[in-house]
Amino acid sequence: MKTRRKLAVGLVGYNFMGKAHSNAWRQAPRFFELPADVRMKTICGRNTAAVKRAAQRLGWESSTSDWREVVDDPEIDIIDISTPNDTHREIVLAAAAMGKAILCEKPLGLDVAQCEEMLAAVRKARVVHMVCHNYRRIPAIALAKQMIERGELGNRIYHYRARYAQDWISDPKFPLVWRLQSQIAGSGAHGDINAHIIDLARYLVGEFSEVSAVMETFVKERPLAAGSRKKGRVTVDDAVSTIGRLRNGAIANLEATRFALGCKNSITLEINGSGGSLAFDFEEMNRLRFYNSADPEARRGFRDILVSEPQHPFMESWWPPGHLIGYEHTFVHTIADFVRAVVACKSVQPTFEDGLRNQQVLDAVMQSARERRAILIRR
Amino acid sequence: MKTRRKLAVGLVGYNFMGKAHSNAWRQAPRFFELPADVRMKTICGRNTAAVKRAAQRLGWESSTSDWREVVDDPEIDIIDISTPNDTHREIVLAAAAMGKAILCEKPLGLDVAQCEEMLAAVRKARVVHMVCHNYRRIPAIALAKQMIERGELGNRIYHYRARYAQDWISDPKFPLVWRLQSQIAGSGAHGDINAHIIDLARYLVGEFSEVSAVMETFVKERPLAAGSRKKGRVTVDDAVSTIGRLRNGAIANLEATRFALGCKNSITLEINGSGGSLAFDFEEMNRLRFYNSADPEARRGFRDILVSEPQHPFMESWWPPGHLIGYEHTFVHTIADFVRAVVACKSVQPTFEDGLRNQQVLDAVMQSARERRAILIRR
Amino acid sequence: MKTRRKLAVGLVGYNFMGKAHSNAWRQAPRFFELPADVRMKTICGRNTAAVKRAAQRLGWESSTSDWREVVDDPEIDIIDISTPNDTHREIVLAAAAMGKAILCEKPLGLDVAQCEEMLAAVRKARVVHMVCHNYRRIPAIALAKQMIERGELGNRIYHYRARYAQDWISDPKFPLVWRLQSQIAGSGAHGDINAHIIDLARYLVGEFSEVSAVMETFVKERPLAAGSRKKGRVTVDDAVSTIGRLRNGAIANLEATRFALGCKNSITLEINGSGGSLAFDFEEMNRLRFYNSADPEARRGFRDILVSEPQHPFMESWWPPGHLIGYEHTFVHTIADFVRAVVACKSVQPTFEDGLRNQQVLDAVMQSARERRAILIRR
Amino acid sequence: MKTRRKLAVGLVGYNFMGKAHSNAWRQAPRFFELPADVRMKTICGRNTAAVKRAAQRLGWESSTSDWREVVDDPEIDIIDISTPNDTHREIVLAAAAMGKAILCEKPLGLDVAQCEEMLAAVRKARVVHMVCHNYRRIPAIALAKQMIERGELGNRIYHYRARYAQDWISDPKFPLVWRLQSQIAGSGAHGDINAHIIDLARYLVGEFSEVSAVMETFVKERPLAAGSRKKGRVTVDDAVSTIGRLRNGAIANLEATRFALGCKNSITLEINGSGGSLAFDFEEMNRLRFYNSADPEARRGFRDILVSEPQHPFMESWWPPGHLIGYEHTFVHTIADFVRAVVACKSVQPTFEDGLRNQQVLDAVMQSARERRAILIRR
Repeated sequence: MKTRRKLAVGLVGYNFMGKAHSNAWRQAPRFFELPADVRMKTICGRNTAAVKRAAQRLGWESSTSDWREVVDDPEIDIIDISTPNDTHREIVLAAAAMGKAILCEKPLGLDVAQCEEMLAAVRKARVVHMVCHNYRRIPAIALAKQMIERGELGNRIYHYRARYAQDWISDPKFPLVWRLQSQIAGSGAHGDINAHIIDLARYLVGEFSEVSAVMETFVKERPLAAGSRKKGRVTVDDAVSTIGRLRNGAIANLEATRFALGCKNSITLEINGSGGSLAFDFEEMNRLRFYNSADPEARRGFRDILVSEPQHPFMESWWPPGHLIGYEHTFVHTIADFVRAVVACKSVQPTFEDGLRNQQVLDAVMQSARERRAILIRR
Repeated sequence: MKTRRKLAVGLVGYNFMGKAHSNAWRQAPRFFELPADVRMKTICGRNTAAVKRAAQRLGWESSTSDWREVVDDPEIDIIDISTPNDTHREIVLAAAAMGKAILCEKPLGLDVAQCEEMLAAVRKARVVHMVCHNYRRIPAIALAKQMIERGELGNRIYHYRARYAQDWISDPKFPLVWRLQSQIAGSGAHGDINAHIIDLARYLVGEFSEVSAVMETFVKERPLAAGSRKKGRVTVDDAVSTIGRLRNGAIANLEATRFALGCKNSITLEINGSGGSLAFDFEEMNRLRFYNSADPEARRGFRDILVSEPQHPFMESWWPPGHLIGYEHTFVHTIADFVRAVVACKSVQPTFEDGLRNQQVLDAVMQSARERRAILIRR
Repeated sequence: MKTRRKLAVGLVGYNFMGKAHSNAWRQAPRFFELPADVRMKTICGRNTAAVKRAAQRLGWESSTSDWREVVDDPEIDIIDISTPNDTHREIVLAAAAMGKAILCEKPLGLDVAQCEEMLAAVRKARVVHMVCHNYRRIPAIALAKQMIERGELGNRIYHYRARYAQDWISDPKFPLVWRLQSQIAGSGAHGDINAHIIDLARYLVGEFSEVSAVMETFVKERPLAAGSRKKGRVTVDDAVSTIGRLRNGAIANLEATRFALGCKNSITLEINGSGGSLAFDFEEMNRLRFYNSADPEARRGFRDILVSEPQHPFMESWWPPGHLIGYEHTFVHTIADFVRAVVACKSVQPTFEDGLRNQQVLDAVMQSARERRAILIRR
Repeated sequence: MKTRRKLAVGLVGYNFMGKAHSNAWRQAPRFFELPADVRMKTICGRNTAAVKRAAQRLGWESSTSDWREVVDDPEIDIIDISTPNDTHREIVLAAAAMGKAILCEKPLGLDVAQCEEMLAAVRKARVVHMVCHNYRRIPAIALAKQMIERGELGNRIYHYRARYAQDWISDPKFPLVWRLQSQIAGSGAHGDINAHIIDLARYLVGEFSEVSAVMETFVKERPLAAGSRKKGRVTVDDAVSTIGRLRNGAIANLEATRFALGCKNSITLEINGSGGSLAFDFEEMNRLRFYNSADPEARRGFRDILVSEPQHPFMESWWPPGHLIGYEHTFVHTIADFVRAVVACKSVQPTFEDGLRNQQVLDAVMQSARERRAILIRR
């Protein structure tokens, strides 16, 4: 009898993303048929006491405050990186050197140069690599991808528009947290949330060829801490609005903002093709709206597909039709596909190359906002 | 140092509800601060091989095909019953006799007499008892309850209306499964889904005093199996429509059906009070719509509350605002509250008394449909 | 050259309905090809000065305070009755005797006996007769009718449910206007708005065979006038909830209320058949939602048809696709169809027979509420 | 007794806009208290027979095929221009010279130079002048304007985003009509529909300071006529996407397209301020959604205001609450306000200066699309 393979995982990071990834590692084997068992071996974080508590709460065997220990652990097969952006490069290079399969949170690096270096490293090491753009595996988005590939929107896409809107810093009295400081966060709404809808554009429609953008910091100074009277400068963008072209001829319109009161974590997409349209709203993430111009003329209309049928991507593993899933499930789907790829030694989208291409667009957007002109994106 | 208490659980049943309960037992300690550790000791089911696989998949230490083993196990503190309706009584009586805390799927029993016997047993044994009406712990429903109790709908409720609609047997070629045979299932849409919206009426608004009902079996004969040419009689209801009065003067209108094409697991509620209205739709379970007549006259409108803020019931334990949860979370909330009640030796709603009162209404509805007249419900 | 016929109209009533009917008489010839010219000859109302002003404002040649003058005017071809319910019978009998075509506001009479007498009169006189159930000619409703007749919901209808909800007397301080006094208004929500959704049930699905109902007067005493401390008894119903059966086997569920805060003039319908479902909401009156079980399994969903295409009923006469129409247009459509029927001497639905059948259901609902049992409706 | 003034109107143009304007001239005096009577004297169009039929159908006393006759008619007080864009200048200059009050369809002229000349002419002649941007007088939009002015969105506006989407030329087989030829139409989606959402930006939020744009012609050749095999070049834009800044610091994002399948005449707006947000959708034109950050934290949500109360702009003149109005009513409101301004000899927004400022933005957008850089807009 063939023994079943066991994959040991080390997770670096234990905050919001660490909690979401841990849940996914725990849940994936409960709901999906995986070709290996998962062993949640080590979680790593800077605060020793806190990460120890996290290990217990989140279900890890052990904890450490030194990520090199995790990378160097010969028993560990997979390194999952959910730390802030500025630490990704170093951990990825070390993990690749040790031959680990790598799942890395988005955005992959701080700039194009870092991403190129990281991509080169994983290629050289021939390890499986994936960027955690979890929204690709919302079932409704995966269904949209299928429909576009099968030509259900026609043979041409005309428009991709997306908006990622939040409101958590809309109040000028909200303090100057690290996410509002460029030396730590890199950028504001741009790298944090614009990165997601750029990835979805590339995934669903195609590569960018040109962008023009406006970036703005609406509240330029903020209290250093909640309630404090001392203020400091905000050095990242509050909002970024982008227009551009994709290589296949589609027009793109993207907007990312942290200043849209009433929008908590709102991601809305609409895609118009020559044969139909799709619309999606993350606040109704179990639905996909589909307009099919092949319907009889007097019976056309946006169709509200409740993406909960066994025929829909990922849904057979969960509950019967009409029983909704939530945000955390997107990570479970990501982990399940990643584990399959690791066992099969196959590429799994989105790869580090996707991370690099995403970064090229991110950089071009910033350049356009600075130079107030359209920027071409090299092929 | 005080040692932390550990509660061992035995779960009877391993199908749809067994999967949902198992998930809840696994997840509750990961997201909620519980006063005890949970040990998922034994899962029980009739098919030895299948329940063994289920144990592994769902995370139980051991499995058995004899529920008496579970009930008799001195290490087990809690019996969780997620088997079909006709087995509840026997297991409850045995578990109560053994002093176990009991969580039982709805509906509690087959009729009022059974429910009375079960309630007497748990009272006599002084064990914690709860019926698993998981929809009470949808955060939006728990919020609705808070708002009604705080008087946000005014000092009187005029209308409670609810509809639970599915479509899975809408096709006359769908076969005669056990759920369509009264000797096994008791009733059709009535006990299965009408029971839920009756419970929500009682939870949110109050006790019933009178009901009138129409029941119908639209498709009276069905193939004995999928594709079979032999047919058998359907002996349960396909749909039931109920009107009535609550003791506090409100009018109730309830509808449960398995014949509403396009409705997969749709539960819609609307409650109108003297000071405002609430509307809920389970297909958008993270939302609660609220009309407040205290708003300025020209600014009134149904307010679409995204129930994902830390101030909303249960939500602080999950994700940041705007990140949705799904169906399975309602069971996690139920288990978390149940564990706290078991440790504190306190009553936790909905109790077996709620199960009994629910059954009184269910019985009255059936009687009304039969006798084609209004039936009073004793206090 | 053939001279074009001219039809002279006399309108009795000049308040809310008088304004809506006058607008329809003015507008119908501007937007629809009619087989005759319309002459708005006389408007009639009890207050001489007020009706004179109304004539000028609403576009009538002359005014009078005596409806007999209108009925006796030999130049007048059509009598349009938009007065309160208790006056319909007398005017109809007189108008029929004079051979006038008659359009009468709903409900036709005060009870079944009156309706039978009125129907007999128009039949004997062989005049064209129509009850003004304007909601039948909402384009979305007319489209629903077409779809049901063409079998697009399948060969059986399982459910008809409708709710007509308002909130204008929800405040207990709202005074005891005449509409809340049975000797003038006959009934409350029942005759006023339940009558409409009963008519739509008959129009769209079929005749009733049995009803059970609950009626309630939530606020039993009200100030005699706004702000007054003297109170009087409310003698009509505030709300009525009805369940029942149609002859074709469908189950009906109807609710009419003036106590649903947030609902101004909300009419919602859902119809479930063996092949699909339709949903309508008068607050989005230009839309019809359609679930088609013939769509591919993983692409099904309620389709949101914007009923504004030239292929949709009545819409070619108005504006290009996507340009909405409103409440008043339903009367324009009614008048246009009525004029065509008068010129062609043909029957036009809804006839006085529809008015009578509607009254039979209304009476049965009241009897059921009184006797607390199901009431059969004679064929 | 003071005699009531009578204003005689001459309308140039009798197609889609001519029909809408005629209806508004007929209906305004029926529903609004106007300070003068309206006399629909002459309608003008190039085809003598067609305009004669139009006069009769639409309610005009006389017709002519020579617009100079209308402008020269000493009895006529008001010239209403609803002809294509390229004819506006000549008619306006002549009408101003004759001292007529002028209502002109949008866009005012073909370019900034024309608009300046027209503005100078009406100023010199001291006549009342108005551009017919009818969407300003959708009640929900007028309410939005009030709310913003009263500070209900806070003291700053962060975002204005709008999209005007249609789909009528989405099919590549749709022929090369005049609207797709630049020598006649000037531009495509840009002047036709982008002009509207630019006007709403200026009306609701403020003046533009900078724009960047992408314009695209997706289908570059089309059949010369329906079904024809001969093709001609499309010389206007199919879609235009614009980002930019307003003087008050807000970011703007605008999109206009004729290639969004499923969007018939969809205009969606969202405005985010420091104290709240507003959202509007022309396909639900009787609603305005309002998020108020002053609501209690756990009760916040977009409030769905049904704009049909007597307190809402324009609505008292129509029907009771909950009874919707449609597209054509926006013109009635425009005419009513214009008539009042003419009688009072007062300015009425949007004036020709608004037309000029709109044109400045339109020109800058085209320049930006051509030069692929941000274009400043002079004050």
